[in-house]
Amino acid sequence: MKYRRSEIDACSGLQTTVRLPDRDCGQVDEDILSALRRVVGPANVFSDDATLDRYAASTGLGCVRARAVVRPADTAEVKAIVLVAGQHHFPLYPISRGRNWGYGDACPVTPSQVILDLGRMNRIVEVNPELAYAEIEPGVTQGQLSDYLQTHHPSLWADCTGAGPDVSVVGNILDRGFGHTAYGNRFQTVCGLEVVLADGRTLHTGTGHYAGSRTYRTYPYGVGPYIDGIFTQSNFGIVTRMGLWLMPAPEEMAVFIVTAEEQRDIAALVDALRPLRMDGTLRSVVHIGNDLRLIASAGTFPFDAVHGLSSLPGELREQLRRSAGIGNWTGVGALYGDRRQVAASARRVRRALRGFRLQFLTERRLQLARMAAVTLRATGWGRRLKSLVDTAEALYGLNRGRPTRRFLLGAYWRRREGIPPEFPENCNPALDGCSFLWLSPTLPALGREVIAFNDLVTRIVARHGFDFFVTFSMINERSLGAVITLCFDRDNAAEAARAGNCYREMFSSVVDAGYVPYRVGTTSMASLVRRSEGFWDVTAALKQALDPDNIIAPGRYEPGAALQAPGEQ
Amino acid sequence: MKYRRSEIDACSGLQTTVRLPDRDCGQVDEDILSALRRVVGPANVFSDDATLDRYAASTGLGCVRARAVVRPADTAEVKAIVLVAGQHHFPLYPISRGRNWGYGDACPVTPSQVILDLGRMNRIVEVNPELAYAEIEPGVTQGQLSDYLQTHHPSLWADCTGAGPDVSVVGNILDRGFGHTAYGNRFQTVCGLEVVLADGRTLHTGTGHYAGSRTYRTYPYGVGPYIDGIFTQSNFGIVTRMGLWLMPAPEEMAVFIVTAEEQRDIAALVDALRPLRMDGTLRSVVHIGNDLRLIASAGTFPFDAVHGLSSLPGELREQLRRSAGIGNWTGVGALYGDRRQVAASARRVRRALRGFRLQFLTERRLQLARMAAVTLRATGWGRRLKSLVDTAEALYGLNRGRPTRRFLLGAYWRRREGIPPEFPENCNPALDGCSFLWLSPTLPALGREVIAFNDLVTRIVARHGFDFFVTFSMINERSLGAVITLCFDRDNAAEAARAGNCYREMFSSVVDAGYVPYRVGTTSMASLVRRSEGFWDVTAALKQALDPDNIIAPGRYEPGAALQAPGEQ
Repeated sequence: MKYRRSEIDACSGLQTTVRLPDRDCGQVDEDILSALRRVVGPANVFSDDATLDRYAASTGLGCVRARAVVRPADTAEVKAIVLVAGQHHFPLYPISRGRNWGYGDACPVTPSQVILDLGRMNRIVEVNPELAYAEIEPGVTQGQLSDYLQTHHPSLWADCTGAGPDVSVVGNILDRGFGHTAYGNRFQTVCGLEVVLADGRTLHTGTGHYAGSRTYRTYPYGVGPYIDGIFTQSNFGIVTRMGLWLMPAPEEMAVFIVTAEEQRDIAALVDALRPLRMDGTLRSVVHIGNDLRLIASAGTFPFDAVHGLSSLPGELREQLRRSAGIGNWTGVGALYGDRRQVAASARRVRRALRGFRLQFLTERRLQLARMAAVTLRATGWGRRLKSLVDTAEALYGLNRGRPTRRFLLGAYWRRREGIPPEFPENCNPALDGCSFLWLSPTLPALGREVIAFNDLVTRIVARHGFDFFVTFSMINERSLGAVITLCFDRDNAAEAARAGNCYREMFSSVVDAGYVPYRVGTTSMASLVRRSEGFWDVTAALKQALDPDNIIAPGRYEPGAALQAPGEQ
Repeated sequence: MKYRRSEIDACSGLQTTVRLPDRDCGQVDEDILSALRRVVGPANVFSDDATLDRYAASTGLGCVRARAVVRPADTAEVKAIVLVAGQHHFPLYPISRGRNWGYGDACPVTPSQVILDLGRMNRIVEVNPELAYAEIEPGVTQGQLSDYLQTHHPSLWADCTGAGPDVSVVGNILDRGFGHTAYGNRFQTVCGLEVVLADGRTLHTGTGHYAGSRTYRTYPYGVGPYIDGIFTQSNFGIVTRMGLWLMPAPEEMAVFIVTAEEQRDIAALVDALRPLRMDGTLRSVVHIGNDLRLIASAGTFPFDAVHGLSSLPGELREQLRRSAGIGNWTGVGALYGDRRQVAASARRVRRALRGFRLQFLTERRLQLARMAAVTLRATGWGRRLKSLVDTAEALYGLNRGRPTRRFLLGAYWRRREGIPPEFPENCNPALDGCSFLWLSPTLPALGREVIAFNDLVTRIVARHGFDFFVTFSMINERSLGAVITLCFDRDNAAEAARAGNCYREMFSSVVDAGYVPYRVGTTSMASLVRRSEGFWDVTAALKQALDPDNIIAPGRYEPGAALQAPGEQ
């Protein structure tokens, strides 16, 4: 049986609940479930509606409910599951923690797929303090790793993203996410993978396939073809362990916050920062958010004040900006080193950013502000200071690998019910009914490119009645990764439909303009062939070589996939 | 027809000339030559003995003479040649400049292969000064690129290796060589490849396959599987263009030279340097050479003083060390930044290397020393100072991307005729009849590992009557790449045979001890299966997917290759 794209789109257009209508293709045979139960035990196989609905919960327009969910305990079980899938001709959709919010969450590409949830495999297998690396399983969250290091190895930091403590480290890295610290170009910190292949073989990359290798976790390339990259943003294998380099805590760190007041000032800001990123002064991934990115970190859309609109009127946006004390753009970066190195680099940053509002955060300044906020707590000043200090501490933490839920708040921007009372301790935007889509094109780190890009996207979002909500991250020395957040109110059918149209137009327009995404959501993967030549045929050949029966996540970063169920050729 | 390994070894054991005995398998049909001539013109196809002998010239024990040589002018001709090879069932062996000295030089893996010499494709297609990158063809040498940048873009540096100006930038990077500067982890500076596949298709990696991509040369990973790594140390495709990031010249640079007096002091030195490499103070690839590495940069083996020995007696080695004013180990690294950043980092280096002899070179100090040497030129002091200044300037240059032939001198160590009079202006160790083999295992950057490794290798080379001649390079923040040079006198048949035995024993011993090579020579590629599990089956499947007819360099980093001529299954 084949699932045509249109059939899948039919369930992914407009929805108010995450429950898919039952259909044959979503059913899973009892013999498959029995076979899976024999591998992982009955407690770790799920096919009940409640569980499948929970896994299908999505922040986006597309939700796809899996046939079943299986949760292995270790690599041996993963191998056994892969063999079962091969025998019974069903595809597996591996997830680490399923927190791929804004990009398809835990949803498989088609409903025929069985979710392979690696969340139980959450061992921190090793931390080597001398060589500063860890070996971790895919279920390890960034909160767990951060806590573990703080307790046992406080002189080692693990880079983290702004997506909060509950997300998988391995999952994010395999999607080539980026973080904040000097180790924020995260793929470059991977050293050696254990991969289960579609035929159940286990592969160790780097030098790890040599018995007794001494450099499995210190030398990533190995000898012969360097293949780690093909297991990122792909469906070629199931990564069950990863070597990950950790950042030695520097003697000193200074976080700086730079403000560009006017819309167009971002060009000068990017052009001032680029040379510092290129000359090694800035080793952190500098993030530059627009006003809305910051406003949305402190509250949700003022539905009461703005009736019937999905975007903020200009005056209101300016008012919110002014009351938050921010400009149009806010950049955050960090300097690492000993006291003199940080001082020398800070001097260089100050000189380069002359003309911009620039502020340095240090541990000591944060402490003083925190004390002042406590002293003034009963007053309005005190409350405002506390909120500022909270944000500053969250930013400071991100730049030293401490995850925070604070910046997840942006996901709640168009949530009509506002911020849930249990936020931030217990939050999951997909389960909390938040609706947003992320689009993340790459740009050269040039001011004029940012202006051209912003002009292009602002026009599109405005035409569809939305706000331009964006962060530019200096993901390497020469590129920006833009993350555009498109928030919508899913209870408003017309708005959700508009969001879909807006997203599709943005997607094709940025690709047409040459701003290729660094990562895409599951519902956009089929669109990756647009304007591309040659590449996807090559990756299809590699897929065919490694997984001829399409066992692993058919359609995932595989735009040409026929999406037929295996064994049904 | 199949070439069994033993047949190949038969021609690679012991030889005094580079000429192979003619054999059927080395013959090339006239219709193949005609077809190639139609593509590149008669002036660019060679099958005469003199040319084939020249390409077969090797510094090593194994020489393999190709069937023919073809020299395309551009990517279109490469594509046409690949199609001819497919039609006529013969394999191609691509080389960039053919200077893979110590690792098989320009020799193909088997004599059935036709060398595809990309040397004429030597265009520097683009240099972008704002984003600091170049786009180059495989024939571009590091001397050419360095000269071009000095003339047209003096504020950009291209990393280079110690192999002199005549070697290919692309060729070295595709073998994952490393350099000296902050861009010395060279594979990390690659951004986008143009690759001709075995079926004649052209592939652009990264975001380069999207029409109008803005980030082809700034964002390496693209979207979907990141595949660039599989075209390094492989035979999956022919790289015809490479995007290469250039290092912006810093305001200031300081090169330091550190000496560890005693053999075992290297442990403390590595342990002192590792934290500086990990914390970002040392962004350059620090190289640590032993006494012999330096002694051999200033002259050849004292054949007259030492009769009939292939290694230096201990007293003589100590004497040479003393007269050169060096210790057992000499490390060289560089600091980059503005004046204050370099000063702060230099302070940190000084503190970490307390207890070692440490010297900083700056442009100013070199100038003063050069002036002093000129003033004193008539005296013995002046000559010695000049030699020191030459070495210091060469080291200084390497750390700013200026190639030098000075360190090629090591290749001439056991050349009985000494250094040729035309050295260094016009040298090619393979054509000059130098004999040496390189073995380059990886180690964790830990003092105790270096000691264990040295003990292991020293015992083996001593048993075979050779000297331990090594450089350890901090090729990333956690690993050392050792390059062991095994020099031998090819005119001495017994010594050459001993060298072969010594090399094979070293190779298997270091692999058995877990020190996996980062790169191997063509004659060792079949040995890569030793102690490996799983990996080479996967790469074989990828090869089969991309080049099912084995058109491109069969056997290259392909230990399981049957090495049968294509079309003769």
